[in-house]
Amino acid sequence: MHNITRRAIGQGALSLAMLGGPLLGSPALAQSDPLPLWNDGAARRAILAFVAAATTPGTPDFVPPDQRIAVFDNDGTLWPEQPMYGQLAFALDRVRALAPLNPAWKNRQPFKAVLDGDLKALAEAGERGLVELVMAAHAGMTASDFTGIVERWLASARHPHFGRPYTDLAYQPMLEVMAYLRANGFRTFIVSGGGVEFMRPWTERVYGVPPGQVIGSSIKTRFEMRDGRPELFRLPEIDFIDDGPGKPVGINAHIGQRPVAAFGNSDGDLQMLQWTTLAGRRSLGVLIHHTDAAREFAYDRDSEFGRLDKALDAAPGNGWSIVNMKDDWKQVFAFDR
Amino acid sequence: MHNITRRAIGQGALSLAMLGGPLLGSPALAQSDPLPLWNDGAARRAILAFVAAATTPGTPDFVPPDQRIAVFDNDGTLWPEQPMYGQLAFALDRVRALAPLNPAWKNRQPFKAVLDGDLKALAEAGERGLVELVMAAHAGMTASDFTGIVERWLASARHPHFGRPYTDLAYQPMLEVMAYLRANGFRTFIVSGGGVEFMRPWTERVYGVPPGQVIGSSIKTRFEMRDGRPELFRLPEIDFIDDGPGKPVGINAHIGQRPVAAFGNSDGDLQMLQWTTLAGRRSLGVLIHHTDAAREFAYDRDSEFGRLDKALDAAPGNGWSIVNMKDDWKQVFAFDR
Repeated sequence: MHNITRRAIGQGALSLAMLGGPLLGSPALAQSDPLPLWNDGAARRAILAFVAAATTPGTPDFVPPDQRIAVFDNDGTLWPEQPMYGQLAFALDRVRALAPLNPAWKNRQPFKAVLDGDLKALAEAGERGLVELVMAAHAGMTASDFTGIVERWLASARHPHFGRPYTDLAYQPMLEVMAYLRANGFRTFIVSGGGVEFMRPWTERVYGVPPGQVIGSSIKTRFEMRDGRPELFRLPEIDFIDDGPGKPVGINAHIGQRPVAAFGNSDGDLQMLQWTTLAGRRSLGVLIHHTDAAREFAYDRDSEFGRLDKALDAAPGNGWSIVNMKDDWKQVFAFDR
Repeated sequence: MHNITRRAIGQGALSLAMLGGPLLGSPALAQSDPLPLWNDGAARRAILAFVAAATTPGTPDFVPPDQRIAVFDNDGTLWPEQPMYGQLAFALDRVRALAPLNPAWKNRQPFKAVLDGDLKALAEAGERGLVELVMAAHAGMTASDFTGIVERWLASARHPHFGRPYTDLAYQPMLEVMAYLRANGFRTFIVSGGGVEFMRPWTERVYGVPPGQVIGSSIKTRFEMRDGRPELFRLPEIDFIDDGPGKPVGINAHIGQRPVAAFGNSDGDLQMLQWTTLAGRRSLGVLIHHTDAAREFAYDRDSEFGRLDKALDAAPGNGWSIVNMKDDWKQVFAFDR
């Protein structure tokens, strides 16, 4: 175990250094501690203990490298979801821009709520209504054109609370965890209720997760040869909602293997954590609890976005770790110190 | 280019040796020739030239490693599809076994055709009807139970023509191509009209393709906690048909990147080859033409399974290579020499 630990830490330091940002300033710390932005608490210890066990050959908890799969929710787990999902902000901007071409939207929810600026009515449309809005607002172009639209939006949009580009808002301690897992042979997947094509243009740059390891909600697409060029057209029709009980379905459809580690922050992640951790072998389930009104936001059971209620109640009985953002994280954002 | 070529061949030899089988007998040949089971013809030269160009930095045709994606149809491209798809044989066995529990099947096509042993009526159900049969016959159990059913069938079933387990029927020259591509930094994906969960239990063992790199047709699944255990139940409802124009859709949904090499053998692969090769950059499109009635089968335009008609006509204009199985392959199966 001594050699294993040393190798793990050594590899961790290498990856952490490649992350850049605040980690570069403390190479000595990174070498001795793969999670320097985490305070020593139960959550940090649970992550370290699981990885040590999973990578120690000859023990019952050893996980062969090809089975080291870790899944991460995105909104609220890897970046903020308040005051609303980043993709929803994107969708609102798109709906406003496209409204003149779609006059019926004036009288149809959830579009009416967007055009009226009525966030309460929007929230009342519910999770599925929100995803439908997000999806419907993103149809009518080719897949590659949509990628360009997302990239242009990301370059200009600013988060209403932090006043920074959305892609600057990745939680630094979670980047550490992802790099640490990858350094120990894990493949890291994003499993989000958000649209898969909204995330793929930037997840590699921001999280180190390539397009093929992003699982999300989707609308249908249709292949067509147009002017001798093969194109995929995005249709205004829901294909799959990767949320709640959809997350294990999406994981199985995409990966075909059961993860051994899952990170989430809301009831939408409950089934993903159940699927990952209740399979009769050692695993890691982690819930991010937003307790930090000063540096980020504080919310759980009554939140309209990212409600954490049933999953919070289920955590103790299932051995899931709760990350108390305020106490467990030394730093939240790259700019936040 | 000299160093690159040498490195590619060196890595190829390593991977080919790991394949075992007939390749182990000729390590010297494998070192000097990454495709020893291929006769020197246009198809072999096209494959070698593409890989050399894709892996030579500083040239316009260089493909960065993270974009080296090669997709392979399965039935008729990696193993036989005559006298019927292997999965169809599996489905017929299942339908016969389950018929007493489903009395309505006696009067409903395509089930009636199966129970009557009426292959003509079965063929008349068409490609979509066949896939529907295959899917419907595979519902009503958990995902993990289905894996066990497939594994038990593979252990006992014998191909009606060759009298051997289906998994002994991989085309050896195609295993060479897959290993050669992987040795040169390509990721190899299967993109099949067959059911994804039918293939995943054995593609790694037979082709070296892990579960997460298998794309196929699917039925819907539902997550459920049952007796405190998380389960995915397979429902008798089509989710996705990964055939024809569905293949680019499946590739984009799963990988999120466009392949640079595609291998198929039928009109069901036409759109996959278009999607891969008509994107304005150098690419590789290959069609396996079944011309070998002695060692395998000879069929194309009039075949009920794996019809090669439109794609054959489209090949010359698109620069796709045609593999003449009889002339291009020194050996077809591991047992065939």
